[in-house]
Amino acid sequence: MTTTANPPTRNGVDTATLFATIDAVKAAPQAAKFQFRAHNEWISGTHNRGRIHDFFGVGEERAHERTFTFDADHPAVLVGSDNGPTPVEFLLHALAACLTAGLANIAAARGIQLTEVRSTVTGDIDLNGILGLDPSVRNGYENITVRFTVKGDAPAEKLRALVDQSRARSAVFDVITNGVPVAIEIDTD
Amino acid sequence: MTTTANPPTRNGVDTATLFATIDAVKAAPQAAKFQFRAHNEWISGTHNRGRIHDFFGVGEERAHERTFTFDADHPAVLVGSDNGPTPVEFLLHALAACLTAGLANIAAARGIQLTEVRSTVTGDIDLNGILGLDPSVRNGYENITVRFTVKGDAPAEKLRALVDQSRARSAVFDVITNGVPVAIEIDTD
Repeated sequence: MTTTANPPTRNGVDTATLFATIDAVKAAPQAAKFQFRAHNEWISGTHNRGRIHDFFGVGEERAHERTFTFDADHPAVLVGSDNGPTPVEFLLHALAACLTAGLANIAAARGIQLTEVRSTVTGDIDLNGILGLDPSVRNGYENITVRFTVKGDAPAEKLRALVDQSRARSAVFDVITNGVPVAIEIDTD
Repeated sequence: MTTTANPPTRNGVDTATLFATIDAVKAAPQAAKFQFRAHNEWISGTHNRGRIHDFFGVGEERAHERTFTFDADHPAVLVGSDNGPTPVEFLLHALAACLTAGLANIAAARGIQLTEVRSTVTGDIDLNGILGLDPSVRNGYENITVRFTVKGDAPAEKLRALVDQSRARSAVFDVITNGVPVAIEIDTD
């Protein structure tokens, strides 16, 4: 395999554009203000459907190339019809996806060719919390564990350092470990 | 429309099974210990694919009726190929889905027939954080807002109270507002 010192694309990451984007934001920090959105419509019981399409960024309204829709539900054992994952499973997916995307970008920036990145995220939860049966039990996960397998053309230490840096710059890791204020507005008209 | 005082199903919620499940957990609190999981495989660049299937609950290994897969990616403006929503958008979807599922269950338990539940969740984020350009900016959302439209056969006050109770018992709301410890393990063999 022939490689060059600084190929334009590594790990499928267009590093030239990545660095140009960072430089552009450095010159115009306001460009980095984004607003992401999810729309949701209740269907029946615990079954509802999310729609992700529009967002704001780099100074203007934007949209994904297509609309992504995702059903959520509870399995039968939690009195649902299993039309989709539970909401708490989507949280775990978001965490794995964020850490993995960051890892690929960081590896590209550091000149490391990845050959495999897999992860399993597990979250332990005691449903006595959400069922209101034990006031000492929280509603959400008690703890979350991410297990990564990372392979590439660098020593184990450098591969591990990719995960460390991805965690240090992960939006979802920050939200899930540190929390964010959430406001709720209700319209009944 | 004819209604009965306590129909077995309201809002698509099998209330008899819901109450029986709560009674069963009351009698055997260990049954409420669940572990949810998401598996993820890197594809290229910021594009990766999550898989949700197996989980543990009510004392044994279980699985959804089918495997759910979800691609995540960045849009072109964030140096991706837009093969799926961003990880941070999945977070917002999880929040809307959790609050909506809870709301339908609570409405059913309170004998309120819902006719419409819609929501839009927005999250404001300054990417100077994850780009490492401003140490005073956090990586994750600065704030999240949920805007609900709730309609049903009850006065506005009672419809609003459904959202309040759903928030008070939401697993995802708890995780996103209060945070959870996340451990990361790395295998490079």
